[in-house]
Amino acid sequence: MTTAETGTGTTASSLNDIFHPRSVAIAGVSTQQPGFAGVGMGFLLSLMELRFPAVYPVNPKYQEIEGLRCYASVLDIDGPVDHVISSVPARIVPQLVEDCIAKGVRSVHFFTAGFRETGDDEMADLETQVVGRLTGSGIRVFGPNCMGLYVPESKLAFMPGFPAEVGPVGFISQSGGNAGEMVYTAAVRGIRFSKAVSYGNASDIDESELLSYLAADPQTDVICAYIEGVKDGRRFFEAMGEAAGVKPVVVLKGGRTASGTRAVMSHTASLAGSLEVFDSLCRQVNAVRVNSVEEMADLAIAFRYMRAPDGPGVGVVGGGGGFSVFAADEIDDAGLQCPVLPEQTQKALGEINPVAGTCVRNPVDTIAIFESPKLEQTLRLIGEAENIDVILYHTSFSWGRGRRSMAMLGADPVHYMQMQVQQMVKAREASGTPIVVVLRPPLDVESMERTAAFQEKCWQAGFPVFPTIPRAANTIAKVLRWARGRSV
Amino acid sequence: MTTAETGTGTTASSLNDIFHPRSVAIAGVSTQQPGFAGVGMGFLLSLMELRFPAVYPVNPKYQEIEGLRCYASVLDIDGPVDHVISSVPARIVPQLVEDCIAKGVRSVHFFTAGFRETGDDEMADLETQVVGRLTGSGIRVFGPNCMGLYVPESKLAFMPGFPAEVGPVGFISQSGGNAGEMVYTAAVRGIRFSKAVSYGNASDIDESELLSYLAADPQTDVICAYIEGVKDGRRFFEAMGEAAGVKPVVVLKGGRTASGTRAVMSHTASLAGSLEVFDSLCRQVNAVRVNSVEEMADLAIAFRYMRAPDGPGVGVVGGGGGFSVFAADEIDDAGLQCPVLPEQTQKALGEINPVAGTCVRNPVDTIAIFESPKLEQTLRLIGEAENIDVILYHTSFSWGRGRRSMAMLGADPVHYMQMQVQQMVKAREASGTPIVVVLRPPLDVESMERTAAFQEKCWQAGFPVFPTIPRAANTIAKVLRWARGRSV
Repeated sequence: MTTAETGTGTTASSLNDIFHPRSVAIAGVSTQQPGFAGVGMGFLLSLMELRFPAVYPVNPKYQEIEGLRCYASVLDIDGPVDHVISSVPARIVPQLVEDCIAKGVRSVHFFTAGFRETGDDEMADLETQVVGRLTGSGIRVFGPNCMGLYVPESKLAFMPGFPAEVGPVGFISQSGGNAGEMVYTAAVRGIRFSKAVSYGNASDIDESELLSYLAADPQTDVICAYIEGVKDGRRFFEAMGEAAGVKPVVVLKGGRTASGTRAVMSHTASLAGSLEVFDSLCRQVNAVRVNSVEEMADLAIAFRYMRAPDGPGVGVVGGGGGFSVFAADEIDDAGLQCPVLPEQTQKALGEINPVAGTCVRNPVDTIAIFESPKLEQTLRLIGEAENIDVILYHTSFSWGRGRRSMAMLGADPVHYMQMQVQQMVKAREASGTPIVVVLRPPLDVESMERTAAFQEKCWQAGFPVFPTIPRAANTIAKVLRWARGRSV
Repeated sequence: MTTAETGTGTTASSLNDIFHPRSVAIAGVSTQQPGFAGVGMGFLLSLMELRFPAVYPVNPKYQEIEGLRCYASVLDIDGPVDHVISSVPARIVPQLVEDCIAKGVRSVHFFTAGFRETGDDEMADLETQVVGRLTGSGIRVFGPNCMGLYVPESKLAFMPGFPAEVGPVGFISQSGGNAGEMVYTAAVRGIRFSKAVSYGNASDIDESELLSYLAADPQTDVICAYIEGVKDGRRFFEAMGEAAGVKPVVVLKGGRTASGTRAVMSHTASLAGSLEVFDSLCRQVNAVRVNSVEEMADLAIAFRYMRAPDGPGVGVVGGGGGFSVFAADEIDDAGLQCPVLPEQTQKALGEINPVAGTCVRNPVDTIAIFESPKLEQTLRLIGEAENIDVILYHTSFSWGRGRRSMAMLGADPVHYMQMQVQQMVKAREASGTPIVVVLRPPLDVESMERTAAFQEKCWQAGFPVFPTIPRAANTIAKVLRWARGRSV
């Protein structure tokens, strides 16, 4: 099914067309300027990397860029141009706008910055004028001051290295940098996107319109949003309610504090508004509020790779007594519970684990799990305990510098990883209890390689992976609160 | 100067001898058993890796291990044996104890677990008996249930891959796993140790004795401690006061919550005690309390690589508007300030930075810093502002997947890194303001390589490096509070 068939009204349907352009022109591509001006080239390379079929560089100074014919103006392009990316300086924008109108494009994305966010009234007026001239001609506008569109289905991307595959997470971001950060960091953790839109100053297309679109978009199962300021409080409240009523919505608010509010004004000229109001809105519609891109990725991963637990009981398993102590503290800190396992569970665990240095109460601290099939048995026994709703399995590929401990276990790393994941899958099937993996961050290149490989095996088998116990526990607690809010 | 000359009393002087053994025997080394029992082999490999000169494996089942003669008993060893590591099962311990007494060793470290921490009265009695028998014969005991000694000067280590170099951080840990985690994670961030001691159940040598030792140790400038429970409150209070009176002391308390307290009992049989009491003790002696191994490493790095700032004013610089918004929020969250830069600073910054997409108020959001010498100029101008006490410079080697953005800048990565660090050094010299680096975590093997290389260049030039703004801001705030507490 293509999203073009799914429009639920004029607005959504027109955004849908905009998300599926037949051709893209990039005005202001330059092979020479470094820094910001060089980002035009970044757009071109990103589109070429995903093999977008019809991309036209525009710059009167070049005949050819990256093997493509370069046009002096948008008007010189022979075929139709649906979408235009503006990477030209602000002073050249008025001419580009007239060219776009004459060419009959559908949408313009202004990477071009230096408008309202400068705090200069004249530039704010220019922004209003430019955007008004375009929307008055039926052309929709992204920005100014943003990175625009990542729609893998359409082969659109705004930074190099974005995954080509489509996934169920829809994402809107008032910041281009944060959008890129989210796509990159979530990608290695198994998240793929339906659409990711960096919308900057939101002079035309704004957070509310995009949220309504994603609420109705059948390719989107989870919605994430980075928001600095809201243009129309009532519309935003309605759009949030609409979205959160049908899908999990995760919201990251920039500008929570006095300093942050000031930074927001310099960044996208938005009024950050009061955090209390924003927070109460999130609570009313049952949206999950987070405080960082990492936490937003954590929640997206949880909604993608685990069912909500039935209650707050966490069973912890892994090697290391000190680490177990932290895990217990950190699970309590997050408002979850780390209950003592039932007598019969402890007894059964004691039978498959050696005595010395082992604890089977919860946290379960054992290294018997390094031997197959004891990991499966241990996870299954814990998962079957009546007071456990979710299992947190912590491990690392840096311990003892990986190589040596592997060698001591006589295991080949790839085989050892597969063996672990297979046992986790069997335990999850047998007990029906969700398993969450905590995989401690790597310390060197070798452990990075192993950690990345294990992380990928985990999410491909449907296990969410977090780098620390506090982040896993916080995520589980927020998913649990969300699930309870939904059932109210 | 050797530490042997520095004893300030009988206790410290005898610990000093123990930290410098002439020979080590490891009882219970086995080449066959995986898991816990295989840790004896881990001790052997770790000592061999640091080229400890006289190590004797002991196990009646072997003639030779790793090319070394293996002895049936400690008594069979020809020369003197100063230190014995016990990796034998608890039931074999009584015989080993008699052998150690007959041999006249100075100290015994019991990796052997399964004593008091099992919760079994009989095993608790055995622990008391065994330790009492040794101490009654003038032999000092580490543990049971611990990893023992890491003293790089003596070429002693308890896990493979520990740095061979000596450094100024002294560390005591009730957990062996946490001790290893601290050494590994802090090592890649530029921390080297004078001594690190994992002391487990603390049946003889305990936290208070070790703290007093480190307070007097001239090789130790910063003290870190992971503590689960305290045996004698008054002695501990005195030892903490003694240590914190002369050096920064960073304390990580395990067992802060109900679940954590229970886990502590299973781990080292310690009474975790009330967090409120512990916290108030830390405040009274001006010790810095932290909540995780990562945070302990953060503080150690700050005390090692920066002077305490004079006030709470943070100047933030780096690329990315959204990231700047978070930085501002996160600095406020930590109780620091992110003040608007003075007019003349903004004007001077505006002259060296292009207008579009740049903010020079604070956070300073600019990518002009990628061109030399603009980073130096920018850092110097911010550092010279009267309301800035510390600069937070954030960067990343994952952005745009590193390679391409580097290529776009026409820079060779090694040269680019050196250029950055040189500019940072010049700016620090010119302005006298401390510079803290936030280096975002790598996402793949390639960016891991770059990130690790840049991190190392930074700490070698005396800059502390943190992975996130919140962790840097939290650390700066705690160092500032510590400095103010000291001057009261």
